[in-house]
Amino acid sequence: MRDIQGQPDHRRINIRKVGIKNISYPVKVLDRARRSQRTVATVNMYVNLPHHFKGTHMSRFVEILNRFHGEIDLESFPRILEEMKQRLQAEAAHLEIEFPYFVSEDPQTGRPTAAGPDGIGLSEYRCRMHGSLADRDELTLEIRIPIAPPKAPVHCSGLPRSLGHWGYAEIALQFRRFVWIEEIIELAAAVTRHDVCWPSPDQPAGGDPDADRGECALAVENLAKALGRKLKQHPDIRCFSVRVENLAAGFNTFATINHTAPKNHD
Amino acid sequence: MRDIQGQPDHRRINIRKVGIKNISYPVKVLDRARRSQRTVATVNMYVNLPHHFKGTHMSRFVEILNRFHGEIDLESFPRILEEMKQRLQAEAAHLEIEFPYFVSEDPQTGRPTAAGPDGIGLSEYRCRMHGSLADRDELTLEIRIPIAPPKAPVHCSGLPRSLGHWGYAEIALQFRRFVWIEEIIELAAAVTRHDVCWPSPDQPAGGDPDADRGECALAVENLAKALGRKLKQHPDIRCFSVRVENLAAGFNTFATINHTAPKNHD
Amino acid sequence: MRDIQGQPDHRRINIRKVGIKNISYPVKVLDRARRSQRTVATVNMYVNLPHHFKGTHMSRFVEILNRFHGEIDLESFPRILEEMKQRLQAEAAHLEIEFPYFVSEDPQTGRPTAAGPDGIGLSEYRCRMHGSLADRDELTLEIRIPIAPPKAPVHCSGLPRSLGHWGYAEIALQFRRFVWIEEIIELAAAVTRHDVCWPSPDQPAGGDPDADRGECALAVENLAKALGRKLKQHPDIRCFSVRVENLAAGFNTFATINHTAPKNHD
Amino acid sequence: MRDIQGQPDHRRINIRKVGIKNISYPVKVLDRARRSQRTVATVNMYVNLPHHFKGTHMSRFVEILNRFHGEIDLESFPRILEEMKQRLQAEAAHLEIEFPYFVSEDPQTGRPTAAGPDGIGLSEYRCRMHGSLADRDELTLEIRIPIAPPKAPVHCSGLPRSLGHWGYAEIALQFRRFVWIEEIIELAAAVTRHDVCWPSPDQPAGGDPDADRGECALAVENLAKALGRKLKQHPDIRCFSVRVENLAAGFNTFATINHTAPKNHD
Repeated sequence: MRDIQGQPDHRRINIRKVGIKNISYPVKVLDRARRSQRTVATVNMYVNLPHHFKGTHMSRFVEILNRFHGEIDLESFPRILEEMKQRLQAEAAHLEIEFPYFVSEDPQTGRPTAAGPDGIGLSEYRCRMHGSLADRDELTLEIRIPIAPPKAPVHCSGLPRSLGHWGYAEIALQFRRFVWIEEIIELAAAVTRHDVCWPSPDQPAGGDPDADRGECALAVENLAKALGRKLKQHPDIRCFSVRVENLAAGFNTFATINHTAPKNHD
Repeated sequence: MRDIQGQPDHRRINIRKVGIKNISYPVKVLDRARRSQRTVATVNMYVNLPHHFKGTHMSRFVEILNRFHGEIDLESFPRILEEMKQRLQAEAAHLEIEFPYFVSEDPQTGRPTAAGPDGIGLSEYRCRMHGSLADRDELTLEIRIPIAPPKAPVHCSGLPRSLGHWGYAEIALQFRRFVWIEEIIELAAAVTRHDVCWPSPDQPAGGDPDADRGECALAVENLAKALGRKLKQHPDIRCFSVRVENLAAGFNTFATINHTAPKNHD
Repeated sequence: MRDIQGQPDHRRINIRKVGIKNISYPVKVLDRARRSQRTVATVNMYVNLPHHFKGTHMSRFVEILNRFHGEIDLESFPRILEEMKQRLQAEAAHLEIEFPYFVSEDPQTGRPTAAGPDGIGLSEYRCRMHGSLADRDELTLEIRIPIAPPKAPVHCSGLPRSLGHWGYAEIALQFRRFVWIEEIIELAAAVTRHDVCWPSPDQPAGGDPDADRGECALAVENLAKALGRKLKQHPDIRCFSVRVENLAAGFNTFATINHTAPKNHD
Repeated sequence: MRDIQGQPDHRRINIRKVGIKNISYPVKVLDRARRSQRTVATVNMYVNLPHHFKGTHMSRFVEILNRFHGEIDLESFPRILEEMKQRLQAEAAHLEIEFPYFVSEDPQTGRPTAAGPDGIGLSEYRCRMHGSLADRDELTLEIRIPIAPPKAPVHCSGLPRSLGHWGYAEIALQFRRFVWIEEIIELAAAVTRHDVCWPSPDQPAGGDPDADRGECALAVENLAKALGRKLKQHPDIRCFSVRVENLAAGFNTFATINHTAPKNHD
């Protein structure tokens, strides 16, 4: 038996985290083309408590959120965390928001563009920001980017039709210096359009092993690696992980890679 | 056999509806306190096609949506439907949007209030609008209203704590004249707080059958009926349905009522 | 105003349906190859009540379910409904079960097969049965069938890879005489593999308008119609609806058709 | 810059995990009362690959699953993992299954019981097993246990009614020696019924601070700690975590605790 002295070791079963989750809340996030964008987030707020704590004023989480009126951005994130840590007398504070982010895209090039004339399409990207503050603060940004083979769509009875939903890449990263969401989207688009080779009718998949441009993108492993190579070259990205998932009818396949920050270069 | 003349009856297996669904899109909806509110909707657009149709230009749905830039409200709804019906040469057009709607509420009274000083809470209501246009247009508004027993929250170790999630009422209605979302929320709050009797510690549930104020609200049937009585008195509501659902750990219970518009009063 | 005599018209706001939903329950369903198959269903049970009813013994629904021990099949369905109708003194009774159904399939032909030697794959089909009993009983069976272009999978780095998830067909039907789930699956497989024309590398989509075998299947409209033609020829199917949905990254497209039973042939 | 020698450091962006997920599959799991229970699982299978790997035969995952015919239990888990590790030449193999597990319970005491006469209720518990094999194998079992205040249900119009869905506890653990799922359920039931004090009408919540039996269970923190104390005393449980979540209309509150195995006692 572990508790040989007859004294329960209360330190090892203390509350680790306590908080609130799944609050739906309107937020305003930074937008490269339009300065800011209003969207709706699902918010989680929680703290790590010191061991002597009895219970938490759960309503304080909501009070803090209301005080900031949904003005949640890279500037307010650390201030909200600081207030949570202080008012709840916590060892660490955490704030997670998940939201759809909309980007106006040029339908020809697929590149983000300023919201413009009629007919410019909006693409949705699911994003997530997780900030935490213990001794120092840390912010992780996650973006889910849909992946589609970069072909002209197949035409059927004269109308363009979808070959189905290929899947997506989920990129999580921490910055050295600020990076726009749009920049990550462009980086991923460049990789899926130019740096990997999708199989084509004329050239069977994997049939050109000497090709410079890389491996067949249909393999989740190849696409994850290609994204990793590009993210690694970005000077403002400190560390990242990539998860590529390919959908099929019976099950999905996936591959993940991680790139941790080297200790001595940071 | 049915097709006795050897001629397949193609009229009976024609396409009935064709369209697109699950587009995530930022929208602006009418808000009583602030004129308009930006939120994010899930949009479905579809049409009923005449029988000779071969196929539809699916991309036209998105083009129409983009043309309106998410300015979707009671004014633009019929115009979008009109454009869908015309450009897709349809017999009928349908537009459905589902979105979270946020209302500033006075934490004391639970009543909608103007967005005000710090600390005013926001409550989320899931809403859905379904507009259709065939010979004439029709708009149905649905609101999901969380229901909680109208007691002071239980205190535990000195802090207020939840007894759990009781459930919600889902109200769908068609207007005679415009009705604010906030008005339906207030109507439902009045019913759940005053028109039905929740069981209390001092007075066992259902123990006072002579009480004027109505039956025990814990029964989904009673709450549905009480909401129905109130909605029926509203002069601007033409017809409605109410669905009350009570959550439990193993299964939910529910009751629905319908009130169709009398033909001769409309 | 409607209630001109000052007497509330209670008939029009009576409870329409009351019941329980989302019970998870193990069930046993008929299986062509193995006689019966154990799976897990989500169960809804509800009744239409006569207008003078005050409230229902919700626990009776679960008691009835427990009495049948999950032996839910085409034989017990009407007996369960009969018991619900009687014990709850209802005008009509409804039982809905939704469950994954597994079929052993020959990986070469994709046809259902007896569960056999090692390595035989299992495919999952989401099914739903909705039985109702008022004056007479009625049973609707729904099957969701994943659709994939019937090509050899693309090879990538020498390994087969998915082009993504194309979508599915959702077929709902009522029988004249009993039809196996497997039969509907085979019928749909025959249509998607042989009766419609998928675009191929050698022959551009829609490029062969004279082809006997039908229209390009990439269009949800064409696939829905082709399935409808086949279902209409089946002598044991009384009426049906088909919904075909094609998945894409930003939104899905869909088409539905309905075939109602001709009154005089049934 | 990191890549100072001009040689990309491929070690840091290698594939970490590759596999398949979300396969629905019938499985047979151990059941204390009935020896085994057939249910339906969602299965994920993945491996950690050594750095020189190009790509994986994804179909091998399914082949291995099919070879075991869904006979997935504590005995076959390590054998499946061994086969995955060998056939995919992996550094580590992972198998996750998530499934509903049904327990016959005496409606009076709420204790698991042998499946018996008519009318014995079935309760559903969501379970998850995660096995991994690198140098040695490890198995984590997770159980989600619904929590309800241990009162007699409130009666309303003479019929028992729910106060709503309070929430659940999610217990994850690793064994020293085999522990039945039923045992964990009983342990949790004992805690929520006897070891914590729920507020009652007669005695306001938290109003009896000297009570031996513990703190007011409405606080997620208190319930998490009470569960932790009990799990810690179990001789066959090596380490665990507990997550208690309380549902409310606008947001949920939660608390987690962790108990890691002391290094020297294991």
